Amino acid sequence: MPARPPVLIDLKFNPEGIARILKTAFPDRGSINLADPAAKSRDLSAIDYALLWKPDADLFERAQNLKVIFSGGAGVDSFMNLSGLPDVPIVRFVDSSLTVRMSEWVVLQCLMHLRRQREHDRHQRDRIWSQMAPPEAAEITVGVMGLGVLGQDAVRKLKIMGFNVIGWSRSRKRLDGIKTFDASELDIFLSKTDFLVGLLPLTPETTGLYDARLFAKLHRGGALGKPVFINAGRGRSQVQRDIVAAIESGVLGGASLDVFEVEPLPAEDPLWGLECVFITPHDAAISEENALFRHVEAQIARYERGEPLEFVVDRKAGY
Amino acid sequence: MPARPPVLIDLKFNPEGIARILKTAFPDRGSINLADPAAKSRDLSAIDYALLWKPDADLFERAQNLKVIFSGGAGVDSFMNLSGLPDVPIVRFVDSSLTVRMSEWVVLQCLMHLRRQREHDRHQRDRIWSQMAPPEAAEITVGVMGLGVLGQDAVRKLKIMGFNVIGWSRSRKRLDGIKTFDASELDIFLSKTDFLVGLLPLTPETTGLYDARLFAKLHRGGALGKPVFINAGRGRSQVQRDIVAAIESGVLGGASLDVFEVEPLPAEDPLWGLECVFITPHDAAISEENALFRHVEAQIARYERGEPLEFVVDRKAGY
Repeated sequence: MPARPPVLIDLKFNPEGIARILKTAFPDRGSINLADPAAKSRDLSAIDYALLWKPDADLFERAQNLKVIFSGGAGVDSFMNLSGLPDVPIVRFVDSSLTVRMSEWVVLQCLMHLRRQREHDRHQRDRIWSQMAPPEAAEITVGVMGLGVLGQDAVRKLKIMGFNVIGWSRSRKRLDGIKTFDASELDIFLSKTDFLVGLLPLTPETTGLYDARLFAKLHRGGALGKPVFINAGRGRSQVQRDIVAAIESGVLGGASLDVFEVEPLPAEDPLWGLECVFITPHDAAISEENALFRHVEAQIARYERGEPLEFVVDRKAGY
Repeated sequence: MPARPPVLIDLKFNPEGIARILKTAFPDRGSINLADPAAKSRDLSAIDYALLWKPDADLFERAQNLKVIFSGGAGVDSFMNLSGLPDVPIVRFVDSSLTVRMSEWVVLQCLMHLRRQREHDRHQRDRIWSQMAPPEAAEITVGVMGLGVLGQDAVRKLKIMGFNVIGWSRSRKRLDGIKTFDASELDIFLSKTDFLVGLLPLTPETTGLYDARLFAKLHRGGALGKPVFINAGRGRSQVQRDIVAAIESGVLGGASLDVFEVEPLPAEDPLWGLECVFITPHDAAISEENALFRHVEAQIARYERGEPLEFVVDRKAGY
């Protein structure tokens, strides 16, 4: 196989994140990141693919043999007027990935708690055949806090999986077939909730919101006996010592946490060791940069297999 | 709280299963199973609730103070003409539970493989913060074998979760928005499938169907690299030594098994010890008896809270 030229990256956003994620992206061809000072003098004449957002003014003069240009965003206005733009396909970044992936995580966590996966894990480890008859989804009320794009997608998918779903947001959102609550009705919402799913942004009002007082208001005596706390919003919305205490005292029956007050979660944190807690390292929904690089990798793979590129810009329409 | 009279059971089907499941059903009031010889002479005059399917001819003479009668089936013809039928509510058994629960299991297994849950488990055990960027559901093709009620429900839910879903059945079924294959197209179906989900009944044709030759035909080089085998149909459709060998040689990347050639799965079986295999003890969808008892428990709870019973028979209509 001939050597593959690296992918050229000139993205004027989140430089630390991009540098970090680039270390593992494009494993079969590598990349040249123009944000890296060492790249300033590199010869770019053999580069096939460039991923751009507000690129350097002389970018197209340096990289004169591009085969495909990828935009780092849904739009392409950041380079369409740059001098020297070659007549090659321009591919937009179209991404519902974050939403889809967050819902995968939320539904997975709810199903693992519902179906008592940790007990199955333990039985498997101990080679014990022990049938369980957990409740079915309809017997569990999942209360979703935060009804933006992520929350609404999670609500829809949880409902289709059979859960009874209710929603809470600061100002009431009306969702088809879902009972919703607003700021003034938080206690009623909590009193009906078996699985609390947190998808809230971090604001002064949500800082430290998920604490012992809140956990004590969740529905008790439901089909699984104890409520479960699931958070993929922001770590500083939760009081972790209260989560640990609530699990140890039986106020909570379990938890799933993707976010933490301090990240990475320190190795000595007691949360790691609680059997009924599922820990993921803030990767429920990978960053946009990750999704962006995956999208570019996938489109390059299509192109090199001779398949048509997707999301190609109509130059006349300009999008 | 006053002593609660036990629930009277007179179900003329699956006596072994019912006797077994009754041991844990109705924990707060117990039961009297008329199939048990010791029950033949019991005084039934204080019994409130009876669960019946083809009951003894003298049942209503012995149990004269019933408050609610539950049918063991969707119909009530097995006792509507029995002499002494009291004028109390009669509740039918309405159950979509099996289907719902099977789809919970199938979606849970697919999401655990997709989101690399076993690696997250290992990292949590070792207190290692290690972000992963697995593919999203759309990058995985789930091939469902068996497109009856269970298969169709699983297909619909997997699709909504974002998976690319295709289906196979002996004679082609047409499903909206799903590419389906028939017996003659098995190899094409397998060549497109990353996660194979087996929901087939046991017949001479499906006995030993999932073997080394079949696993070798599954799609390789997909977003997770290796295919995954998921079976909740019947254990004798799979060749377990071939599953173990396929995982050890890397032909399969993982498996989820709820059914086995011999059940319970013997403690010395190597499947228990494979990290990328999820074992459940044939409890993906609990038996109808379990669902029936849960339904009766739930209706009794409603009745005793003063809420209206559901699924009450219209005596004039007879159903």
